[in-house]
Amino acid sequence: MDPITAMLETVLEEVRPLGSGAPAAYIPELASADVGLLAFGVVGPRGRVFTVGDEDATFTIQSMSKPFVLALALENLGREEVLARVGAEPSGEPFNAISLEAHTGRPANPMVNAGAIATTALIPGADIDDRTGRIVAMMSAFAGRSLWIDESVYASESSTGERNRALAHLLKSYGIVTGSVDDAVESYFRQCSVLVTVRDLAVMAATLAFGGVNPVTGSRVVSERVARDVTSIMASCGMYDFSGEWLLRVGLPAKSGVSGGVIAVAPSQFGVAGFSPRLDVHGNSVRASAFMEIVSDRFGIHLLEPHESVAAPGVSVIETPEGPLVRLGGELGFAGAERVLSLLREITAAAPHASLITVDASELARLHPAAVMVLRTEVESLSPRVRLLV
Amino acid sequence: MDPITAMLETVLEEVRPLGSGAPAAYIPELASADVGLLAFGVVGPRGRVFTVGDEDATFTIQSMSKPFVLALALENLGREEVLARVGAEPSGEPFNAISLEAHTGRPANPMVNAGAIATTALIPGADIDDRTGRIVAMMSAFAGRSLWIDESVYASESSTGERNRALAHLLKSYGIVTGSVDDAVESYFRQCSVLVTVRDLAVMAATLAFGGVNPVTGSRVVSERVARDVTSIMASCGMYDFSGEWLLRVGLPAKSGVSGGVIAVAPSQFGVAGFSPRLDVHGNSVRASAFMEIVSDRFGIHLLEPHESVAAPGVSVIETPEGPLVRLGGELGFAGAERVLSLLREITAAAPHASLITVDASELARLHPAAVMVLRTEVESLSPRVRLLV
Amino acid sequence: MDPITAMLETVLEEVRPLGSGAPAAYIPELASADVGLLAFGVVGPRGRVFTVGDEDATFTIQSMSKPFVLALALENLGREEVLARVGAEPSGEPFNAISLEAHTGRPANPMVNAGAIATTALIPGADIDDRTGRIVAMMSAFAGRSLWIDESVYASESSTGERNRALAHLLKSYGIVTGSVDDAVESYFRQCSVLVTVRDLAVMAATLAFGGVNPVTGSRVVSERVARDVTSIMASCGMYDFSGEWLLRVGLPAKSGVSGGVIAVAPSQFGVAGFSPRLDVHGNSVRASAFMEIVSDRFGIHLLEPHESVAAPGVSVIETPEGPLVRLGGELGFAGAERVLSLLREITAAAPHASLITVDASELARLHPAAVMVLRTEVESLSPRVRLLV
Amino acid sequence: MDPITAMLETVLEEVRPLGSGAPAAYIPELASADVGLLAFGVVGPRGRVFTVGDEDATFTIQSMSKPFVLALALENLGREEVLARVGAEPSGEPFNAISLEAHTGRPANPMVNAGAIATTALIPGADIDDRTGRIVAMMSAFAGRSLWIDESVYASESSTGERNRALAHLLKSYGIVTGSVDDAVESYFRQCSVLVTVRDLAVMAATLAFGGVNPVTGSRVVSERVARDVTSIMASCGMYDFSGEWLLRVGLPAKSGVSGGVIAVAPSQFGVAGFSPRLDVHGNSVRASAFMEIVSDRFGIHLLEPHESVAAPGVSVIETPEGPLVRLGGELGFAGAERVLSLLREITAAAPHASLITVDASELARLHPAAVMVLRTEVESLSPRVRLLV
Repeated sequence: MDPITAMLETVLEEVRPLGSGAPAAYIPELASADVGLLAFGVVGPRGRVFTVGDEDATFTIQSMSKPFVLALALENLGREEVLARVGAEPSGEPFNAISLEAHTGRPANPMVNAGAIATTALIPGADIDDRTGRIVAMMSAFAGRSLWIDESVYASESSTGERNRALAHLLKSYGIVTGSVDDAVESYFRQCSVLVTVRDLAVMAATLAFGGVNPVTGSRVVSERVARDVTSIMASCGMYDFSGEWLLRVGLPAKSGVSGGVIAVAPSQFGVAGFSPRLDVHGNSVRASAFMEIVSDRFGIHLLEPHESVAAPGVSVIETPEGPLVRLGGELGFAGAERVLSLLREITAAAPHASLITVDASELARLHPAAVMVLRTEVESLSPRVRLLV
Repeated sequence: MDPITAMLETVLEEVRPLGSGAPAAYIPELASADVGLLAFGVVGPRGRVFTVGDEDATFTIQSMSKPFVLALALENLGREEVLARVGAEPSGEPFNAISLEAHTGRPANPMVNAGAIATTALIPGADIDDRTGRIVAMMSAFAGRSLWIDESVYASESSTGERNRALAHLLKSYGIVTGSVDDAVESYFRQCSVLVTVRDLAVMAATLAFGGVNPVTGSRVVSERVARDVTSIMASCGMYDFSGEWLLRVGLPAKSGVSGGVIAVAPSQFGVAGFSPRLDVHGNSVRASAFMEIVSDRFGIHLLEPHESVAAPGVSVIETPEGPLVRLGGELGFAGAERVLSLLREITAAAPHASLITVDASELARLHPAAVMVLRTEVESLSPRVRLLV
Repeated sequence: MDPITAMLETVLEEVRPLGSGAPAAYIPELASADVGLLAFGVVGPRGRVFTVGDEDATFTIQSMSKPFVLALALENLGREEVLARVGAEPSGEPFNAISLEAHTGRPANPMVNAGAIATTALIPGADIDDRTGRIVAMMSAFAGRSLWIDESVYASESSTGERNRALAHLLKSYGIVTGSVDDAVESYFRQCSVLVTVRDLAVMAATLAFGGVNPVTGSRVVSERVARDVTSIMASCGMYDFSGEWLLRVGLPAKSGVSGGVIAVAPSQFGVAGFSPRLDVHGNSVRASAFMEIVSDRFGIHLLEPHESVAAPGVSVIETPEGPLVRLGGELGFAGAERVLSLLREITAAAPHASLITVDASELARLHPAAVMVLRTEVESLSPRVRLLV
Repeated sequence: MDPITAMLETVLEEVRPLGSGAPAAYIPELASADVGLLAFGVVGPRGRVFTVGDEDATFTIQSMSKPFVLALALENLGREEVLARVGAEPSGEPFNAISLEAHTGRPANPMVNAGAIATTALIPGADIDDRTGRIVAMMSAFAGRSLWIDESVYASESSTGERNRALAHLLKSYGIVTGSVDDAVESYFRQCSVLVTVRDLAVMAATLAFGGVNPVTGSRVVSERVARDVTSIMASCGMYDFSGEWLLRVGLPAKSGVSGGVIAVAPSQFGVAGFSPRLDVHGNSVRASAFMEIVSDRFGIHLLEPHESVAAPGVSVIETPEGPLVRLGGELGFAGAERVLSLLREITAAAPHASLITVDASELARLHPAAVMVLRTEVESLSPRVRLLV
């Protein structure tokens, strides 16, 4: 067994005994879920998938569809047009709260039901099937395989979804939803009823983690900016009225669904997904949440964890016949550029007068704009002997 | 002029024309502020300070004191004891809202007034002076110089602070504040009345950015964990009811004060501070906010921006008489370890049979636990000829 | 001109100059109302109708339908069954607020939209037409003539009524509405679109004032208990978030409608109605409200005005050959019975020994139970010579 | 035993078995109340006092002080000046809710704590003792004996009253309370700690019932208008978030206190008071509330019960040598005047030509202005032979 799988297995056994919570009860399909099911998946930058537990269990995506439909809306309409209809503000309220901005009726954010319905209503489509088709196609691109809708869950959602219908009519009354209320809400019920496994979810999360490129298929699904916007909103609003404490404790943009799934995004590192049907009072899976907190801690991937790399890029100095060749690797940010400059001053001072000093920044994985500016201006001014390759 | 200062000057002139908003009016000292004042400061990892504009202007720290008093409380009591008295959840409500959890009376978070008063009340102290002394000492350590209180502002705050007194009595009624209400609220008024410049604030923010070590003085002020916790809470709750949209647009943990100051933290990169007295409807400085958004964009330092470095560490391969020496630089995370392994497989396959392959991870700025695990298990299993130096 | 009409004319001219407010704007039919229209009507116990101003102007009944549909529900189902679905508590909130009881979803009261829709949904009916038929029949009985629906207003209400649809779906989600949401909400729109004049409204109000008997037709429309319950709820909740101040200033159970109508009930005295399209911030007609306040004051009919009659019944003593005949008139309550007893003691003491004292309570308009008890027990115990005729 | 006492005893035994609820627990003096205590009192127009049960039990008046302090404020300042500082609107919220009007900070009404503190702060006084002295003097006038403060309860209230202190500071922050916050809140605690018996409370309620005249002492305590205003506000707001349902079920202006007392006012009929320490979820005494509901029903004194007397005054016709003498008794309202006119038409038609018809309205207990107008205009126009004595 590879070490990552082994580590995931270890954490899975740590969280398996957690027995609190209960599955969602509002439709039979969720109420009758096997509460013993437990599965986790991680997908890294090369698209390698690690799964443990009941990895073949399928379940409906529910609210975890929200980030992906938001991504579709942002891709189609742009950030400002989407924000005109739905905010980006955590509401401090439960998932089904009627959190609409006074006077405008704009829902607080796209991660609560009101905001998700408003977002779905923004997706163009001649009718429900057309709109749902676009949504499922986008989710499938994120997952790297064709996903489909569980029609019996959809039927149950639709037959019990009066509160969501109420929200949709309220949004219509404010002009936030402009087309058919029924189309919007039925599309929403359909997107929630898409069937997934933890593997699918981990790939979907990884696609957000790697700037919108699916690491399994290698396809760009959405732009880097859209991926950043979606994860930003997941960071502040994804875990309902536990979002702030989640950011404190776990530190990863995440989204939970009432089916017991949770996805989380470690930017540039991996996507992770968990599944276990019992929910806590916030509507988040008890065991999947615990898993995420442990993984964040063990992997050291909390968003606010210092990233030394940015400040300390890889630098190797190779003596060549011409003079020292300074090769920069990794990522060079503002802080790193300062350190590089400091090092170059020493090298320049120490180098024989005739030697040429070459700074090779062409291999950098990422070069921050501020760092470029510092390098361009200062490196070449150090001495006429210093040459910068970008 | 150095390029960073030049860039800051450019942005300063871009935001200077913004004329909306008004200074806070509830005390004469704020109402009479010179609305033309405009200053910004940035402090990087080596403690170099860049300031532009009215860098000598002094003003009271106001709500920007909250993260630092929170840091003091966390340092003294630990995270769980603090969270028992004050939450970490954005409230979706204005700064002075009475956002207390039903039944428990726990304030939503330490960045709104109710939560800040609860936090201040947690700081031990025989009396107001003793508690205020500890608070000002902590702030001074963050700033790298002795700060002091503007007594006339304090007197004004105290004489008009009935709403804050109300919050404190409410907290007392729930047992959140356990000692003297007057002591708590007067200490809070005093901490808000500490005088600062943008230079001070930028150093304070930088100390959070560099994991609790003041980059100017080199002293550790709080533990890395406390710095991470404080910036996490700033990320979700620091900009009042604009916190979510701020995280989307600017992507930096931040805190604003009613005097017109804003601090923001780019983890491992720099601390930044701005000052301009006119406030928007959320109580955040109009021009300082605009400045931060531009800087975040130009510097590419949004928290959710992909950090390629983590996935793509610096790798240099040097041929030595013994065989190839693979030197890793920068930061090695889980994603990067996968890439390194992939490269090592190629090198191992290509290397002459007798040669020894050395992987030098000892120069890495940061090695994530998951990466260590992958390297330890897999590197040495590639071939008996591969040797890992950590 | 009769003196009542003259008085009404006087008050009409007093309120005519009031120019503040604006007609409701959400549908064209209301927005285009002639704001100069002004009419008032009063109906007394004998069914005599006094009207002044634009007495022939017709307008839609809107929310003034609520008390009458409540009466129908109470008559059909009884008080407790109705209260299980809708409360009787003023909400302190505007007419269209989403004031539902936590957990149960019970609307605050039947006078706000949510509660009115819940009430309408309680009216049995095979379909919308059947239910609407019952409702219009009940309103017609209250008005003493056949009322009918303005179909163009109904069409407008229905096409813009998304907020009310939202409320209905929300009620359905809580199980407060159990049947078809569409049927409930369309029935509600239809009941709001019934056309009336101030004459109709005054008769309808008078029917409530006289315990459920229409004073014009002489028919009992609802039971005395139902009339009392309806006026009780109008007293506490009828004028939206001005209900408390209305009870203080005007002191009459009342209900306003967005078309500019107001009805008020002076129990056992008269029903009164006003019409003037401009509304204040609470959604109550500016000039009709002012009219009611003046009338209440001039007529001395504030509910909390002391009613001396109850304490001081009409008593006449007639000397007959047999002895004194004490005839009681008016209404005899607990307080009055005390006074009667006191008088009887004097008469008994003063009357010649042989004389018989007869107390004739048979002409009393109303005899309170407590008074009966006092009289029965005490009157005959005064002396064997005293005889009580009840 | 008199019949009234007997009836009260009967009802007392009916409610004695009610075992639900619990006494208030926030201070030892209330928590340790003997929950078996049960007492009721009724006071009629002549000041006769009927009490049953533990009539000597003393307890603190608590929130039942609110109507009387409101009366004092209204008497001193007038209605409009009081309303500028505190509303008259039921809030739909619990007694200690922070129900302040947005922007103005005006408390919803004087019957919730915030509004009561604002009202107390309006009472002039050089210091706490001076203000408390005026308040206790007013309460004593209502009770007809000197009341005094239980200092140990006051001390407990003061030491635990942080929530009320919070409300007072909040009111100060809005400028609703203008003087010393401490003075206002301590005065409020003192007024709540006045000791009473059900006898006292029944007399106090009766003083409101009889238009501000204490029926025991015969002294006018406040004006009739003030008594009406106070009972109006009790009618809409007196029983916290049960006020609307109380008006529906009991139909009497009332006020409850956390000590277990309830007072209710039957205008022109009697004052009634109950005492039993166990409270329901609204903070109203379980057994005292049940008692009031039964008494209202048995005595037929619901405010919205039709008062036939007003429509049907006492009329007696006595043949005199001059002609018929029509004597009117009781109360003559608008509706009654119509009936009298109708009768006079018949008498006039039937009377011999030479006879003089005298209408004697001089004995009426109350003559409504509208009735005066009708009589003056129409009676004398019937025939020159008709003469009106008013």
